[in-house]
Order: sequence, then structure tokens, then C-alpha cells
Amino acid sequence: MKLFRYLPILDWGSRYNRTTLTNDGVAAVIVTIMLIPQSLAYAMLAGLPPEIGLYASILPLIAYAIFGTSRTLAVGPVAVVSLMTLTAASAIAAPGSADFIAAALVLALLSGLFLLLMGILKLGFLANLLSHPVVSGFITASGIIIATSQLKSILGIEASGATMPDLISSIGKTIGTVNIPTLIIGVLATAFLFWVRKGLQPLLVRLGLPSRPAELLAKAGPIIAVAVSTIATIMLGLEAKGVKVVGDIPQSLPPLTVPLMDFDLWQELAIPALLITIIGFVESVSVGQTLAAKRRQRIDPDQELIGLGTANISAAFSGGYPVTGGFARSVVNFDAGAETPAAGAFTAIGIAVAALFLTPLLASLPIATLAATIIVAVLSLVDLKTPRTIWRYSKADFAAMAATIGITLLAGVEPGVIAGVGLSLALFLWRSSRPHAAIVGRVPETEHFRNIKRHKVFTDPRILTIRIDESLTYLNARWLEEFILEQVAEQEEVRHVILMCSAVNTIDASALESLEAINHRLEDGGILLYLSEVKGPVMDRLKRSYFLDELSGKIFLSQNKAFSQLIQTADAEEAAQEPVDRHLARGMI
Amino acid sequence: MKLFRYLPILDWGSRYNRTTLTNDGVAAVIVTIMLIPQSLAYAMLAGLPPEIGLYASILPLIAYAIFGTSRTLAVGPVAVVSLMTLTAASAIAAPGSADFIAAALVLALLSGLFLLLMGILKLGFLANLLSHPVVSGFITASGIIIATSQLKSILGIEASGATMPDLISSIGKTIGTVNIPTLIIGVLATAFLFWVRKGLQPLLVRLGLPSRPAELLAKAGPIIAVAVSTIATIMLGLEAKGVKVVGDIPQSLPPLTVPLMDFDLWQELAIPALLITIIGFVESVSVGQTLAAKRRQRIDPDQELIGLGTANISAAFSGGYPVTGGFARSVVNFDAGAETPAAGAFTAIGIAVAALFLTPLLASLPIATLAATIIVAVLSLVDLKTPRTIWRYSKADFAAMAATIGITLLAGVEPGVIAGVGLSLALFLWRSSRPHAAIVGRVPETEHFRNIKRHKVFTDPRILTIRIDESLTYLNARWLEEFILEQVAEQEEVRHVILMCSAVNTIDASALESLEAINHRLEDGGILLYLSEVKGPVMDRLKRSYFLDELSGKIFLSQNKAFSQLIQTADAEEAAQEPVDRHLARGMI
Repeated sequence: MKLFRYLPILDWGSRYNRTTLTNDGVAAVIVTIMLIPQSLAYAMLAGLPPEIGLYASILPLIAYAIFGTSRTLAVGPVAVVSLMTLTAASAIAAPGSADFIAAALVLALLSGLFLLLMGILKLGFLANLLSHPVVSGFITASGIIIATSQLKSILGIEASGATMPDLISSIGKTIGTVNIPTLIIGVLATAFLFWVRKGLQPLLVRLGLPSRPAELLAKAGPIIAVAVSTIATIMLGLEAKGVKVVGDIPQSLPPLTVPLMDFDLWQELAIPALLITIIGFVESVSVGQTLAAKRRQRIDPDQELIGLGTANISAAFSGGYPVTGGFARSVVNFDAGAETPAAGAFTAIGIAVAALFLTPLLASLPIATLAATIIVAVLSLVDLKTPRTIWRYSKADFAAMAATIGITLLAGVEPGVIAGVGLSLALFLWRSSRPHAAIVGRVPETEHFRNIKRHKVFTDPRILTIRIDESLTYLNARWLEEFILEQVAEQEEVRHVILMCSAVNTIDASALESLEAINHRLEDGGILLYLSEVKGPVMDRLKRSYFLDELSGKIFLSQNKAFSQLIQTADAEEAAQEPVDRHLARGMI
Repeated sequence: MKLFRYLPILDWGSRYNRTTLTNDGVAAVIVTIMLIPQSLAYAMLAGLPPEIGLYASILPLIAYAIFGTSRTLAVGPVAVVSLMTLTAASAIAAPGSADFIAAALVLALLSGLFLLLMGILKLGFLANLLSHPVVSGFITASGIIIATSQLKSILGIEASGATMPDLISSIGKTIGTVNIPTLIIGVLATAFLFWVRKGLQPLLVRLGLPSRPAELLAKAGPIIAVAVSTIATIMLGLEAKGVKVVGDIPQSLPPLTVPLMDFDLWQELAIPALLITIIGFVESVSVGQTLAAKRRQRIDPDQELIGLGTANISAAFSGGYPVTGGFARSVVNFDAGAETPAAGAFTAIGIAVAALFLTPLLASLPIATLAATIIVAVLSLVDLKTPRTIWRYSKADFAAMAATIGITLLAGVEPGVIAGVGLSLALFLWRSSRPHAAIVGRVPETEHFRNIKRHKVFTDPRILTIRIDESLTYLNARWLEEFILEQVAEQEEVRHVILMCSAVNTIDASALESLEAINHRLEDGGILLYLSEVKGPVMDRLKRSYFLDELSGKIFLSQNKAFSQLIQTADAEEAAQEPVDRHLARGMI
């Protein structure tokens, strides 16, 4: 059973049959057709030679097919990780240089090792540190940067930069050198691909094709753009007119590469590799979970880390660069009917065949066409609806998202992710340190207790009930002391304080110390402290402390019992005191 | 009113009278007698000339008297902050050198600026990041390091180090050079001071003194040790026999000093200064709050930051080093009857008089006596009871405490604090990411719903009620999706899922997205989702999202209503379906 857990292939592989084979095969063909131009384009985006995109789409897919748990995730080069690779490796060497390629290999290796380690230590929960608004903001900002960076290839100019200010000033400086044939190809390809996305499927349906095949056929749009623009470039001799093309791609299977064992370099790339790891993992798991749920399957996040880890390590040893599960391709794979990870392995075979035999056909492919592919793909990542929804729902979450977008656009992907994580965390800690609490009273003729500010309720000036709406931890322990003592200071008649703990799920050692302090301070002022509605696990733990021995009052199972009984106690106290008071008033004592 | 908030002196100063003056004066005399040897000793511990301890006990006390909110806090040099100063400044220059003294001034300035900034921005809550077990562990470990470091002065050897391994190996190497007269003074002084602590007060009481004066007189023990050992050193000519003495101390008021405006140095000292700031603030606020509560007074943590900030800035400009509110002296000040911060100002005058006139008397004071003072003071900080209590109560808190103690002892104070903060945070986030949740059922003949694992309750196989015992945030959003889908996958008959939200205090944007995803996935499987017992503020916010429009089921005010009504719904559904099923069974359709 343990082997099954670490090698999911043993599970689905044992039930593999002819139908699954056919379905996986069909899906693989469609994904391969989509992946050929994408892998070239994303390698280019990462500042790497095009064949590296192909190499990153062979062995990593096979590794994921063996170790991954998603049935339909399509692993390989993706836009955001390619941009992050460009940024990280640019700090080491000039894009395209041998040192740059070596740095990309090291990034794949480190990222693979991090993933594997996190998987073995079951640290998948670390991905939680990225909140949805932060991830959404980061992807949107990355999409904008990527689309802008590709404008240079559409315009046929030299420009570079990894942040919006750099990109815009760089494009501004070189805009005078626009190459008109390149611009025409670029604009036509972009327009065609946008139309394919929106208009081709409806057209095919109107022409009589069923909806599903029409949708899949429309996904082949990029390959049509590739073919047409390549033929046009050759026929019209556009290369001589300054249109940049992909050029010669070696015809070979992936080479065996050994990443540099240069530990200074490793140290320099460790943080970027960690960020690539986390962003890649979060993106991949989100896609994987969404698709698995549609077929009532499940993925195992910890095993996913192992699957993606081995994929990246194989990328490092086969001339690739960091990979992860991509959104668009996975959806196509799913829609095309892929049933098992074998579809990924078949895709790998398809790409291997392409790398061996089809690369000569791609030599005259204009780079502007690849840029168009990227622009159309990443603009679908730019999400302008979510910020509006989040603004309405939570200003704090919106602030984290806006900061992530702003910092990513202005300072780049790495500061963007770090700021996003930092801000989410800071907001969370700030909120946790000032929780909600309410003074409650009894709703007449019920046993319910509600906030005195929101409901008409019955209270007694001698009894103060405070409902704490949060677990008590070291972050809010000091707040708790201040809040309770302040409430008591304001209400002089109070003799009994009840803490209603219905929403308290844990009390840590710091909070326990604060409760002890509160108990003693109230006792010094002649006020007794009670708890009500304490949950089972919390009570079990309190029994292991000295708090229950020291508590001046007692613990009530229900708030209603606490309130009713303390009213009687307070009445009895007053009755006992009254004669004395009366004597005092008459000067008799 | 705003001026009163920032200048608490205006408040208590306006009600100052002869009685308060007398009480404050008496307390100031006692604290001054205690502070003279302490300030010399702590300066020595910090690697600074003894007069710097006196200077740090003059202006800072006056600044705190103006801006501080605690009536009885005694500000000045303290043991733990002195150790942290030694560690931080040692990274810049050799202890005692001019550069070292300059670094100590910069530390005081930076720490003052940090405190002031945090006060103005009301960031006092940042101190919450240190949990009680971490602070307690840190103080205990620091106490052990300080006591060990003072052994060298008791033994009359040269030894140094800021971690236990360094200290022990350093003492081991030089143990052969022990100076016997020094050792005799050191051991006698230590024994005497321990006896003063435990035995003098009972003795004085037996001799007929009332308990309170006896207690205060016992606090003068150190000054007796100082006087006797100084006289012995002079009379027996011990200095010639190798007993190290304090030596000449300049007879002067604090000099005006301007901290170096060397920004590289500032940058180097920024992190240590921040740690000194936080530790100093936490220590000071804890003492201040404890003492204030005893007299039903309150302190304002944000204003405390301003008070301590101005104290440290004045230390920087008057030849001092970082100061904060000390535990032992504050308690003495309180017990001696101090009523207002004026007692602190009077103490400052006492120390100024000492700096001007008494320093010649201290020239022959053996350093071993000061070391004995420090050892006896810090060993009272070493708390071996708390670890045991915490172990019983919470293994996680104990782990954070043990790690803080271990890392502080082995690697020093800075790694110790950082590890403590990091661990507390990691534990908190880890716990937050896997909250408690329970499947609940109705307790027979009540409207209460309880955990099916802990109580005998009534459930319906078609209705699954999950009580979530935590606020829903981005940290547990993914867990929530996994948990609910897993529960549903295990129970095939379920048609209605109720999330009981009585312990849910917030739902952030990430968790809202997860709820939407859960809703859609359940709906795909023909299961409806309901919420019950949603709190007012949470509901207000949900109304601003699209979730309520998309929710497949509805929101019930009470869990009891939800359960009762869904049983009826499920019965009705079955009744509607039954005839069809029966027909099917008979092959009639």
C-alpha cells in the first residue's frame, strides 16, 4: 500500500485497457499539436534557445506520469515560470549565453529538490501561505509583463526588461526601428489567434461539426498560424527583409546534461528557485484539484510535490528548464478525454518525434508568430473581474492583491511574490491580534445569548458576559487582558464575569497565562471569573493546568445555566448584605 | 486631552502634593542605593566602562518620568539588554574600546527611534509576536549565560564568549590562572548576597523590625557587600595581590554625546537594535502591567513605547547605552511606596549626586563583588518551574520554549530570539492551517448539536452537518475543500450538507472562493450546501459577495431549524421518488 502511495502508476497502470489507451492517445495527439509551438515560445520567453522548450516537454512528462496523482494535468513549460526563470537566470548571465542555460538547469534541479523535499516532509501546507488574492494578483501582473515583453518581437525591435518601467522605456527607445514585415506578421497572427479563440468554434459548429470536436479543432489554431506564417516567410523571402525566424534547431533527442555543482551558484539561485517552486506548485495544484473534482477524483498534494519534483529533476538532467502543470494545456487534455497520466507519456513521445524529425520545418518560423501565441495565451490569465469582486468583499484582501500587482509590475516577479506572502501574513497576524468579542445578553424567552449591540436582550448589571469570538493564542493574549479589564473598569456594579467560550477552539500557553492573570486581577477587585460553553478538547487541556484550581468562580456547561445561577447568587449576596447596609444607613453600626 | 495622552506627566503632575512627594522620595532613596552597584555591574556586563552605567541611569529616567505611563516602573540598565548590547557591539569592535562605546550609543539611538516610531504608528501589537513561553525561555537562557559569564570575575581569570560552549571552553582554558584573593571575595560576596536575599529579612523581623521595613532594608544588601569588600581591599592591600578593582571613575555629570551618523554602522546594527527594542519592550510592559494591575491602574502600551523611546534617545545623547524597565528594581520601587513617575526622576537626581561625589569611594571596589551582584540578580530570572508547567499543558508551546532555550544557550541571544519568534509563528500557522472540525448530531430531546464522536446524538444519513471550529482564512481554505469533499465521498447517501458556522468569526476572500468551489462541486454531485448559525458580521460581508446567489441550498439562522427542515425535505424527496423506484423495480417503466 505504501508503494502505491509513492508510485500512483501501480494503481492506475494495473487497470489499464484498450479503451483507456485510445482515449489517452487521442488526447496526447491534440496536446502535442498545442505543445509544439508553446514549448518553443515559452523557451524563447525564458531567454533560452527554442529546442530547450522541446527538451523540457519530454522526460519531465514521463516522470510526472509515473509519480503524479492527477489524471489529466499536462506538465511542461508554462508562461509564468518561464518569466521567473528569465528573471532569475538574468542575474547570473546574459539571456541565451551558455552560463544562462547552465543557470536554468540549476534552477530546474534546485526547484526539483525543493519540491521533492517538501513532498517527503509533507510540507504541502506551505503553499497555503499564498492567499488566493495574492496568487490571482501575481498571475495577472505576470501576464501583463509577459504580454508587454512580447511586443518587441511583434514590432521587430530589440527591447528588454523584467518590470513594466524597464520594458516601456526600452520599447520607447527602440520604437523607431520597427520592422514592417514583422509587424504585419505579428498583428495578423495575433488577430487570427484571438479570432480562433472566440470565433472559430462557433463557425465550425455552424458548418455542422458537433460542439466538442469543434472546440478541440479550434485549439489547433496556433499550429495553423505557425504553418501559414512559416510558408509565407519562405515564399516571400521575408527573412531577407529583416523578419527574425527561429533558425536551425538541432535534430535530436534531449541531451544528457549534468547541472553545475557550483555551490556558490546554488546559493545565489536558492531564493529564486524557492519562489519558482512555490508558484509552480500552487498553480499546478489548483489546476489539478479543479479538474480532479470534475470527475470526482482526488489528488494528493504531498504526492504531487514528489511528481513535480521528479519532473523538474529530470528536466535538469535532460537539457530542460523549470516546468510545472499548465492551466490551458491541462484543460485541453481533460476536454480531449485523457483518462490517465499515460496521456502525458504519449505526449512526451509526440514531442520526441517532433524534436527528431520536425525541427527542420520550423527553421523559417517567424518569432513574431511565437510572440503572438504567447500574448494570446497570457492575456487570458489577466483577470480584471476578480479585483472588483474582492474589493466589494474585503478591503484588506484587496489591499494585499493590489500591492502584489503593483509591486510585481514595478519591481518584478520576485519582490512581487515576497511582498504578497508578507502582506497576507501581516494582515492575518494583525487580524488575529485584535479579534472580535461581544458583550452578550439573553434573548427574552429563549436560552440564546446575543450581542447587546445587535439584539434586544436581557442583562444584569452585576453580571458581565463576554463572548470571545476567536481562539485564544499568544497573538491576542495581551489584547484579552486589556479588553476584559477595560470592560470591568467601565462597569462598577459588576461582581461576576462570564467568558462565553463557544467560539474558542484552542487556548495556548500564553493565553492560559493571561487567563490566570485576569483571574487574579479580577479577584483582587472582588470580582469572580467564570467560563461557559467550553469545548471538549479545550476543557481536556485545561484539566492539565493549574488554572481550574485557581479559578475564582467555576466552569458552567451552558451559558444559560451560568447566567441563571449567577443571578440567584447575586440576589442572595445582596439579601445577605442588605440588613447591614440598612443598619449602616441608619447609623446603627 | 490629546496632550494628556502624549504627556502623562500633565495628568499626575497636576495632582502632585506633599504626601506623594514624601512617598516618592523614600522610594527613590531605596532604589538609588540599589541602582548604584547595579548600574556599575550591568555596564561591566555590557563590556562598557562603569560610569556609563551611571550615565544611563540619569537622563533616561527623567525622560521616562515625563512620557511614561507606568507609575512605578524603574527604568535603567538591565541584565538581559546589557548582554544583548555586549553581543551586538562585539560584532563591531573589542569590548571597552572607543568604537565599542560608540556602537553602544548607536544601539541606544536606533532602539529609541524604533520604539518611538512603533509608538507613533501604534505598533505595540508587534510585541505579541513573542509568545510567553518564548520570552520565558529566552530570559532563563540569558540568565544562565550571564551568570556563567560572571564566573570569570569571581575566579579572577580572563575569559569571554556570548554562548555557553564558548564560555565554558574559554573558562576551561584559563582556569589555571585563578586568583585566590579574588575567589575568596567573590565566593563570600555571592554567599552573603544569597543569604541577604533569603535570610536577612526573617532575621530582622526576629530582631523586632516590622516586616515591610525589614524587607526594604534587605534590599540594601548589595551596598553592604560593596562597602565591606571595598574597605577590605584597601585595608588588606588586595589590589597588589591581583584583585581587580573598578578603578578611577570620572567625577562628572553625564557628558553630551552625539551618536555617530555612520549609516553603514546603523545598517549593521539595525537588526540587533530591533531585537533589543522588542525584548526590552516586552520585558518592560510585562512588569509595568503586573504592577499597575495591583493598584487597579492601567498602562498604555503605545504610550509606553514613546516613554521608553525617549528614554533610549536620551541615553544616546548622554553617554549611556540601551535601557528599559527592569523587573527587580520596579518591584522594589513599588514596594517602597512610589506613587508617581516622579520617584524615577528623584532616583535620577540620586544617581547624579553619586556620579558627582561618590565615585572616588568606588575606585577600590573589587569587580568580583559586582559579579556576585549580577549572579545573584540573574539567577532569580532563571525559571525552571515554567517549563514543567508548559510541558504538561502543551507540547507545542514547550517545543518552542525548549528550542529558544537551546538555541540561545548554544548560538547566542540573537539567534535565540529570532528562532523563538520564527517557531512560535510557524506553529501558529501550522495549527491555523489544519483547524478542528467535527461531524455533529442532535442531542436527543434538546436543540443542541454535538460531536458524534463525543456524545450520543441523533443523525440522518441523508444529512451531513459539519461544524467548523475556526475562522475560514486563506491558511485553511484548501484544507476546507479537502475535508468536506472527503467526508462526502465517504458517505454515499448524503444529499444535504450543512456547514455549522457558530465558531466561524471571519471568512476571507480565499476561503470564500473555496466555499464557492465546494458549492459547485457538491452541486455537480447532486448535493445541496447549507450554512447555519452564521454570525452577524460574517453574514453582513457574505451579502456583499455573489456566494449567496450561487449557493445551491440556503442559510438557516439556527442549526436546529436547518436539521428539522432538511429531514422533511429529504422525506418529501424520497416520497416523490419512491413510486418511480417501485415501478422500476417491477419493470413497469
